[in-house]
Amino acid sequence: MTFPRIGVIGGGQLARMMAPAAEALGVGFHVLSEAPDAPAAQVSSQVVVGDYHDYPTLEAFASTVDVITFDHEHVPTEHLEALMAAGHAVHPGPAALVHAQDKLVMRAKMDELGLPNPAWAEVSSVADLEEFGSRIGFPLILKTPRGGYDGHGVRVIHAAAEAADWFAEAGTLLAEQKVDFTRELSVMVGRSPSGQTAVWPVVATYQQDGICKEAVAPAPGISAELATTITADVLKVAGALGVTGVMAMEMFETAEGYIVNELAMRPHNTGHWTQDGSVTSQFEQHLRAVLDLPLGDPAPIAPACAMANVLGADRDDLYHAYLHVMAHDPAAKVHMYGKSVRPGRKLGHVNVCSESAADAVARARHAADFIAGVDTNPHPDRKDLA
Amino acid sequence: MTFPRIGVIGGGQLARMMAPAAEALGVGFHVLSEAPDAPAAQVSSQVVVGDYHDYPTLEAFASTVDVITFDHEHVPTEHLEALMAAGHAVHPGPAALVHAQDKLVMRAKMDELGLPNPAWAEVSSVADLEEFGSRIGFPLILKTPRGGYDGHGVRVIHAAAEAADWFAEAGTLLAEQKVDFTRELSVMVGRSPSGQTAVWPVVATYQQDGICKEAVAPAPGISAELATTITADVLKVAGALGVTGVMAMEMFETAEGYIVNELAMRPHNTGHWTQDGSVTSQFEQHLRAVLDLPLGDPAPIAPACAMANVLGADRDDLYHAYLHVMAHDPAAKVHMYGKSVRPGRKLGHVNVCSESAADAVARARHAADFIAGVDTNPHPDRKDLA
Repeated sequence: MTFPRIGVIGGGQLARMMAPAAEALGVGFHVLSEAPDAPAAQVSSQVVVGDYHDYPTLEAFASTVDVITFDHEHVPTEHLEALMAAGHAVHPGPAALVHAQDKLVMRAKMDELGLPNPAWAEVSSVADLEEFGSRIGFPLILKTPRGGYDGHGVRVIHAAAEAADWFAEAGTLLAEQKVDFTRELSVMVGRSPSGQTAVWPVVATYQQDGICKEAVAPAPGISAELATTITADVLKVAGALGVTGVMAMEMFETAEGYIVNELAMRPHNTGHWTQDGSVTSQFEQHLRAVLDLPLGDPAPIAPACAMANVLGADRDDLYHAYLHVMAHDPAAKVHMYGKSVRPGRKLGHVNVCSESAADAVARARHAADFIAGVDTNPHPDRKDLA
Repeated sequence: MTFPRIGVIGGGQLARMMAPAAEALGVGFHVLSEAPDAPAAQVSSQVVVGDYHDYPTLEAFASTVDVITFDHEHVPTEHLEALMAAGHAVHPGPAALVHAQDKLVMRAKMDELGLPNPAWAEVSSVADLEEFGSRIGFPLILKTPRGGYDGHGVRVIHAAAEAADWFAEAGTLLAEQKVDFTRELSVMVGRSPSGQTAVWPVVATYQQDGICKEAVAPAPGISAELATTITADVLKVAGALGVTGVMAMEMFETAEGYIVNELAMRPHNTGHWTQDGSVTSQFEQHLRAVLDLPLGDPAPIAPACAMANVLGADRDDLYHAYLHVMAHDPAAKVHMYGKSVRPGRKLGHVNVCSESAADAVARARHAADFIAGVDTNPHPDRKDLA
């Protein structure tokens, strides 16, 4: 058998959605899962249940596959370095991954590369924060450098004293200027170890309470100039960091252009639309990239493609809703993650391709909300779809 | 957990390609596989290895799932009837499935429904065949009513005596007029237990030595009148037979219209293009249908989409060919089945969407042949692409 085996650390929905790409490519798909019933463990024939904090567990898993990649960014850097030292292929490698793991490292690198950062500072005390705030102005944003996701690990601070408990608990934090933005954008790039790259169109994303609700590609009304700048910039970042696999760069669109918000070095929620809206999905591209295969065509297949997340509400029976959603919109593409329902939890998403972004978003939003069992409540920031 | 579990009997590539649809829908995907390393067993977390000829094995498998469906048409009718009598949901049911299992039953039903059959006869002896041949003319086609596939169980007969050995061995056979056709066509329909139906565009298929080499959708240059007739006819067949799931109707295009060749009641090689060329793939549609969910949109997403089979040659290392194929054509979609190489064996296929059928077929053919390790040798019957 000449087909390689991919090993994914983490059994979440991102790993789960790599499985169809592995099936099509004919490559092995192994998962190191935190639980036997995790989303990806449900769809792989090769599952090891174990703790990614434990190096012997990682090493044993790595020895059964040809390349290691990730569902998440939480594996300790020293473990990844040890795996590489032991001769295992790890993509993305720890030197790249740290820019998605540590927001202070990321901010410093963006400055070095000349990418548009907000004003920012590394702060370790209320006094540090007071100094930064007096210079930049309150309110400002305070973040834990590591471990944040979906709005966790982020606070809006109106006075430095509010953060006293966090300094006591977390030590060093990242303080950032609160950016005055018109909307949020994201761009995804695939990059192989050989250095080939492919970039999907820039998307507009809509967040509520720090959680991604929707994304639509391409970003409605974005100027050709801004899209070109962002595409060039994400290629610069991917090359400079030595990214292997796919990377998302989340951004704020501003009156002057854009500001970098965060990096993620794996398939990303803002790229789920590619499953049904692009010649090559982000999941297939990630596998092609980590295998160092030539990358797939990132072209969109429709004028607009929207993704809306199914966020848990108080209804457990999601399946019954399919009867309405699929009858109402036979072109809606439903993707569920096999997770139990908890309020606000990402349980799945719906993709819709259409001639217009407004139509695609409205249809995806309706389907996703109907599955979750909530009233559709368009996000107030969606001015670009008016 | 309110999501149902689907149980597929048979671990071949058709079952394998249902797995991504099950992953997206969030439904359970169980496989009763003939071998632990069969194509579908490689991509399911719920595999039972067992013999589908053994009723207790079938019954035990059925008791772990909510609906039974198939990778192939070889499960004995009496076993399926027993499963239904025991309260298990079986889709398609044996009363429909027999029309794909038994070509004599199929021919009689087509006559009853007024669909265009070739001249045909049930023959049990050389004398029977001689009588039919003297009426219709030699050469004619002789088929085993059950168990044929990919050219197996089919013979061209130039004189009745040639078939003496087959009568001794197989008993009753199906004799058919050798149809003078311009090309082969196929049409696929999905039908749910509730009676909802959805039909994909009619495709042109190219066979060599009885094996499907290529398919392209829609059939180039097909008249609107013929496409409409075929669509109406396949809906008539699906309804009259009570088909549940997807069905392929393979046809010969003739100067006067078309002639029915065969039926298959499962996802079919001539529908693989739908994975990358239609809003709803045949695999997703099959699962939606057997779950009695509303059907998905069968609309094509491009002006043309071609599928070319990767047929085994004498090279074992198929993976290495990806380097050329993916670099040469980043939009080619490769689907491999995890099978070992044997000459002529269907190992995978490549789909390509394009603005033109000729371009799509040429690119899919090149990629598939390069993976197999053979020189591209266009089929001489491909006049409609000239």
